[in-house]
Amino acid sequence: MAEQKKMVEEITSMEVDFAQWYTDIVKKADLIDYSSVKGCMVIRPYGYAVWENIQKILDARFKETGHENVYMPMFIPESLLQKEKDHVEGFAPEVAWVTHGGSEPLAEKLCVRPTSETLFCEHYANIVHSYRDLPKLYNQWCSVVRWEKTTRPFLRSREFLWQEGHTIHATAQEAVEETERMLNLYADFCEQELCMPVVRGKKTESDKFAGAEDTYCIEALMHDGKALQAGTSHYFGDGFAKAFGIQFTDKNNTLQYVHQTSWGMTTRLIGAVIMSHGDNNGLVLPPAVAPIQVVILPIAQHKPGVLDKAYELKARLAKSFRIKLDDSDNSPGWKFSEYEMKGVPLRLEIGPKDIEKGQCVLVRRDTREKYFVPLEDLETEIDRLLKELAKSLYEKALANRERRTYVCRTLDEITTALAENGDGFVKAMWCGDEACEDAVKEKTGVGSRCIPFAQEQLSDVCVCCGKPAKHMVYWGKAY
Amino acid sequence: MAEQKKMVEEITSMEVDFAQWYTDIVKKADLIDYSSVKGCMVIRPYGYAVWENIQKILDARFKETGHENVYMPMFIPESLLQKEKDHVEGFAPEVAWVTHGGSEPLAEKLCVRPTSETLFCEHYANIVHSYRDLPKLYNQWCSVVRWEKTTRPFLRSREFLWQEGHTIHATAQEAVEETERMLNLYADFCEQELCMPVVRGKKTESDKFAGAEDTYCIEALMHDGKALQAGTSHYFGDGFAKAFGIQFTDKNNTLQYVHQTSWGMTTRLIGAVIMSHGDNNGLVLPPAVAPIQVVILPIAQHKPGVLDKAYELKARLAKSFRIKLDDSDNSPGWKFSEYEMKGVPLRLEIGPKDIEKGQCVLVRRDTREKYFVPLEDLETEIDRLLKELAKSLYEKALANRERRTYVCRTLDEITTALAENGDGFVKAMWCGDEACEDAVKEKTGVGSRCIPFAQEQLSDVCVCCGKPAKHMVYWGKAY
Repeated sequence: MAEQKKMVEEITSMEVDFAQWYTDIVKKADLIDYSSVKGCMVIRPYGYAVWENIQKILDARFKETGHENVYMPMFIPESLLQKEKDHVEGFAPEVAWVTHGGSEPLAEKLCVRPTSETLFCEHYANIVHSYRDLPKLYNQWCSVVRWEKTTRPFLRSREFLWQEGHTIHATAQEAVEETERMLNLYADFCEQELCMPVVRGKKTESDKFAGAEDTYCIEALMHDGKALQAGTSHYFGDGFAKAFGIQFTDKNNTLQYVHQTSWGMTTRLIGAVIMSHGDNNGLVLPPAVAPIQVVILPIAQHKPGVLDKAYELKARLAKSFRIKLDDSDNSPGWKFSEYEMKGVPLRLEIGPKDIEKGQCVLVRRDTREKYFVPLEDLETEIDRLLKELAKSLYEKALANRERRTYVCRTLDEITTALAENGDGFVKAMWCGDEACEDAVKEKTGVGSRCIPFAQEQLSDVCVCCGKPAKHMVYWGKAY
Repeated sequence: MAEQKKMVEEITSMEVDFAQWYTDIVKKADLIDYSSVKGCMVIRPYGYAVWENIQKILDARFKETGHENVYMPMFIPESLLQKEKDHVEGFAPEVAWVTHGGSEPLAEKLCVRPTSETLFCEHYANIVHSYRDLPKLYNQWCSVVRWEKTTRPFLRSREFLWQEGHTIHATAQEAVEETERMLNLYADFCEQELCMPVVRGKKTESDKFAGAEDTYCIEALMHDGKALQAGTSHYFGDGFAKAFGIQFTDKNNTLQYVHQTSWGMTTRLIGAVIMSHGDNNGLVLPPAVAPIQVVILPIAQHKPGVLDKAYELKARLAKSFRIKLDDSDNSPGWKFSEYEMKGVPLRLEIGPKDIEKGQCVLVRRDTREKYFVPLEDLETEIDRLLKELAKSLYEKALANRERRTYVCRTLDEITTALAENGDGFVKAMWCGDEACEDAVKEKTGVGSRCIPFAQEQLSDVCVCCGKPAKHMVYWGKAY
């Protein structure tokens, strides 16, 4: 008991040390454990349950839009990885290599997939012959490995879980539409289910995925003003198709190359949720992905009738919500802290006096507001409060982003805005030249995050060189 | 069209060449594709959908029995693998080794997990302190790698998908109960959902999992009389706990070691389903895991009203069953063959005459029996026929097993039974001596499959040496 109490109290305040606050939460909300494999984490039941909820919602959305799940090998032979030039240059420096099977050296070394374009391409080349075979809309849930130098739980780890969609189409237009469709699906998911506002846009040339013609992305702003790329959707044109020979006969009996996309979201979304909604009492989880939506805490549970009533409520509410009842002998105070740390959206308290009055108390995690609710109205009220909480989380995150978005017309304005208001998104015009992109980063510390689809004409000239501007760009420091 | 027609016809008869029949089915029912990584397969949408259905049912059963999902790293450092002596001896010869990250050699080589006991143990040692922390009932869905020399799709591949449960308990008794509980859960799943009868038993000493005190297993008999191990459940005692230092303080404040189990089922279940129920027209899928339970085939679909009626039925039936409507311009004959190949349990035909009569035709995949069903009774009739089909599949597989189970009292009887009736299970008594176990295999070709829980006293003496018998054993040739 004493040990547990201490644990709950020990969280660093986010104003003191945001990075430590984050680390405290991932450990103390029982999301992860470290392992003896550097940069790889153990995702514990509570953290994995968040991922399962993310998976369930995304998977249903993928299937509604006609996608099918498959499973590809986790290994890629070196020669296969090398087939598309830009792709291998981008990924070879950061892959893990398998060189031995048992005690024998392999004839050809295999990398553990960092992403599976090459495997999907090889398969598509095998199975696609005619326009009747198109489109193929495949998705895979799996883990991938990238040999990162510095790692942080969820945000950047050597192994992470993700989904990777890989689609091929008869025309460039269809493929571009798919790239946009999936980016919008990602954005809607983040905003509606994770309560996290995102900017939709396009990466600059220097920031594109290795081998892509265009990389679309969604960028979110964390509580500390740093940006986080929450998902990407790539348009490949027919570059991979030519490298791998993925051809089909069209309606006029002519051989054509397919046009291709890929798109992915990962367990880093969990990190994004923590840093978007968490506070100094711990995690705050959006109801859509919370493993426990309502925790029932019996008050004075030794008194006759209290536990019976609590069990009865649990059985009843479990039909509509994800419910946990904590009838352990820990004190109510300890339990309050514990489920605040775990970010459970609603706490339901029921004690002898409540039972007498035919009511219970609901407490919102984010605002700690209390509601006395007649038992017969519980389902309606829980539903209403969960929706309100979700709306508040979104609005609070949006307000944070707006407060921390700075419109700048010169490099000095950028430096001043960041110094005075702290990290955030900088909106500024850009000429399209990579040298300016690099110079902005070097001189102000913020890199290009994306060229948003919603363009504004802040001025006519590049924030860096003063030459005519081509795009408005979101700049920021990134996780 | 011509090419597709040929494909459907090209399956090898199982009486001619059972292995080729199997290979034909996995390819022609679109379950897998080969990849350029030897021994690793691409699981295509139709094959993966079977696995998703298996996962969904098993995962729900695991959760009902109190288990939680987690995710462990896919890599195991060499030193961690070596902590339990028997375990490393069993697995080291068949693991894939990662020796480089990017271009740099690793300080310590990592193996790609062949199974995750060592990782779970390391984590449990971190998080378990008191009897209040027990039991821990964890499960993981992932892929694992074993560097097999000869490989076959689903049955034996270098990478395969599985679940691995890992639990720790305060007492040996609880751990043994868990080992049995999960074996029984597996057996029920195979019998109820996959329609596949299994023998429940225990492996002999020589056949135990590396590091286990006891390995329980379920063994099924395939159509060709070969045995297939469908799932295993291991009791570890406190061997791993001692090697990894997993200790807890009990109620008397004494330090104790935990008692441990692990259990797993894999994608080889799909191979078992193929070889239990398939026939010379292709796959036959149990309704519980069939991606399509009913395929709707419009007859004379160019005639007015036919497609409208078919779409209407699809919308209506999709509320209760997994439905596909094939309105492509392929001929009905081609479609019949295609969905027979894919093992869809029921075919629903609807044409102009049926519509006039307010009925449709249902055809069972296994028996090809036809049923004329009034449209208003469709849900009830489909439900009834799916249940009947499942029951028939089970009974047919059971009859095959019974016909191919031979009670033998001497080695000669074994040889004769197999020669006269073909491969199958041999039931024979055994003294418990490993030398006799080896001798039986060498002289008759059948190895010990398991010591069944349901023991019979066939004779008093060992089938091999004539000394007093300890157990009745199931013997067989295994996949």
